[in-house]
Amino acid sequence: MPDFQPTNPDYAQAVRGSFAKQGIMRHIGATLVDIQPGYAVIQLPYGDDVSQQHGFFHGGVVGTIADSAGGYAGFSLMAAGDGVLTVEYKINLVAPADGELLIARGQVIRPGRTLTATRADVLVVKNGRETLCGMMQQTLMRIVGRAEVTG
Amino acid sequence: MPDFQPTNPDYAQAVRGSFAKQGIMRHIGATLVDIQPGYAVIQLPYGDDVSQQHGFFHGGVVGTIADSAGGYAGFSLMAAGDGVLTVEYKINLVAPADGELLIARGQVIRPGRTLTATRADVLVVKNGRETLCGMMQQTLMRIVGRAEVTG
Amino acid sequence: MPDFQPTNPDYAQAVRGSFAKQGIMRHIGATLVDIQPGYAVIQLPYGDDVSQQHGFFHGGVVGTIADSAGGYAGFSLMAAGDGVLTVEYKINLVAPADGELLIARGQVIRPGRTLTATRADVLVVKNGRETLCGMMQQTLMRIVGRAEVTG
Amino acid sequence: MPDFQPTNPDYAQAVRGSFAKQGIMRHIGATLVDIQPGYAVIQLPYGDDVSQQHGFFHGGVVGTIADSAGGYAGFSLMAAGDGVLTVEYKINLVAPADGELLIARGQVIRPGRTLTATRADVLVVKNGRETLCGMMQQTLMRIVGRAEVTG
Repeated sequence: MPDFQPTNPDYAQAVRGSFAKQGIMRHIGATLVDIQPGYAVIQLPYGDDVSQQHGFFHGGVVGTIADSAGGYAGFSLMAAGDGVLTVEYKINLVAPADGELLIARGQVIRPGRTLTATRADVLVVKNGRETLCGMMQQTLMRIVGRAEVTG
Repeated sequence: MPDFQPTNPDYAQAVRGSFAKQGIMRHIGATLVDIQPGYAVIQLPYGDDVSQQHGFFHGGVVGTIADSAGGYAGFSLMAAGDGVLTVEYKINLVAPADGELLIARGQVIRPGRTLTATRADVLVVKNGRETLCGMMQQTLMRIVGRAEVTG
Repeated sequence: MPDFQPTNPDYAQAVRGSFAKQGIMRHIGATLVDIQPGYAVIQLPYGDDVSQQHGFFHGGVVGTIADSAGGYAGFSLMAAGDGVLTVEYKINLVAPADGELLIARGQVIRPGRTLTATRADVLVVKNGRETLCGMMQQTLMRIVGRAEVTG
Repeated sequence: MPDFQPTNPDYAQAVRGSFAKQGIMRHIGATLVDIQPGYAVIQLPYGDDVSQQHGFFHGGVVGTIADSAGGYAGFSLMAAGDGVLTVEYKINLVAPADGELLIARGQVIRPGRTLTATRADVLVVKNGRETLCGMMQQTLMRIVGRAEVTG
C-alpha cells in the first residue's frame, strides 16, 4: 500500500461524517471499519435484505460497498471543503459472494488534481475463511470547495 | 431494440419469480415494471434509505438496479432451468441521480451460448423530467440446467 | 443518434487535422470515414499487421479504433483550442473480429463541461456481412485551451 | 504476486509461440520480456508509429499491450491445447504515456475453470523514471482443447 500524505489533517473525521450521512449504508447495515490516507475498509454482515435469490450477497451490493470504499479512500486525500463524485466504476464478480460477511478494501492507486483512480477488492468470509469475490476499478472526481457528494 | 425470440415460453414468469426472491430489491423498494424478450425495466422511488449524503440516489444503488435490469434482460432469453450470473459490469455515473424516481432499462446487445453482453441506461425523474444518470455495460454467464443465480 | 450542436464551426477540420497526426492510425492503416457533431466513424482493413495469432483482428486493435472513434466523437463537440484526453475505456469483445474490414462508430451519449461519456460499436465485415464484435464505453476529459491530445 | 502452479509444464514455450504469431505485436515493435505462471510482461519502445498527435504513446496502444499481457498471464495457467479469448477489458489511462518505453505487467488475480480475471499495470519510462500510466482489469475465457486465440 503506497504511503500517502493527507492534505486534510482531519481526514478521518471528514470521511466518518460523510459516511454517517449515507442512508443506504445504514439501511443495508454497512459500517466503515478502517480509514487511513488513501485507504478505506467497509464491512457488511449477511442478511436477507442484501441477498439475491439464492442466498448470496447481491452483486449490486458488492458493487455498492466497493464503490463507497474506493470513494472514501479517495476522499481521504482531498482538502477540507472538497467534495468527491464517482465518475465510473467497474467490478468483476469473480466468485459467488457466499458467506456471512463482506469486506471491501478500497485504495487509491493514483491521486490527481481533478481525477483519482482507485481499486477495491471485496472479500467474502465464510466459516472464517476469506475468498476474493469482487475486483473493482474506479474513477473519482474532486469537486473543489464543495461539500462531498461521494456515491 | 432488437427483436429477440425467447427460448422459454414462460420467460416472464421465470424472471418475475426470480426477482421476487431478491431480498435486496424488496429491501430498497425496487420493482420490476416491464419484462420482454431481451429487455427488462426496474424502477425505484427515492427515499432516505437509498441515499448518499446529499440527498441523491447512491451510485451503488444506481449500479444495483442497472445490474439487475441487465441480468434479467439476459435471463429472459435463456432456457427453462438455466441460471444466470453477472460476470462483471461497468457503470458511468454521468449526472447526479437527483430526483424522485430511478428507472433502469436493461437490454441484451449480444446473446451467446455461454456469455451474453447487455447495456442498461438509468434515468432519474425529477418533476416529471427524465435525465440520463447512468450508463452500464455488462457480461452475463449462462449456467446450464441450474436455477438462476443472477446478481 | 442525438442531434448535437457543435461549438466549433470548424469541428470537422479540427478532427481531421488531429487524426492525421496520430502515427498509430497511419501505421495500422485506419482512416476516418465520417465525422459529424458527436459522431465519428473509423475504418480499418484487415492485414497481417493488425492480427492476432489466428488471423483475426487483435482485440487491442479493436479497442484502439473504438477509443479513437469515441474520442473524436467527443472532440467534435468541444471549442476551438480545446484538447481531449481519454480518461478510461472499457470494451467487450462479443464476437471474434474475423473479417476483411473493421468499422468503429463512436458517439457521444452525454457531453459535459469537463467530462464526456461516449459509446462505440465495432463491426467486422466478412463477405459483405456486418457482425457486432466490440462494444465500448468511454470517459473523455476536456482540456480547456490546450491543443488536443486524444488517445 | 500469488504463487500459481502451471498446468502445462511447457507454458512458457506455448506463450512465446502464440505471441510470435501476433502480427500486431511485431508490427508495433512489442516484445514479450518475461513469462511466469500467471504473469507476463510486454515492452514497447516509443516511435512515431505508436503515437497520438502530441508525441505520446496512443491510449489504444497502451490498452493493446495491457490486453496481451493480461491474456498471456492467463494463458500461462491453462492446459496444453487450450485456447484463450479476451471477453472484455477496461483500462484507466491515469497519466500521459509520455516516455521512451512502455512496460505492461499482467497478472492473474483469479483463475477459473471457464473464466479468469486479470489485472495489468502499464508503466511509462522517461529518462529512466517509471510512471504508472495505465491500469487494466480484464476477463478471459478458456477455450478447451482449441489452439489459443488470445486477443
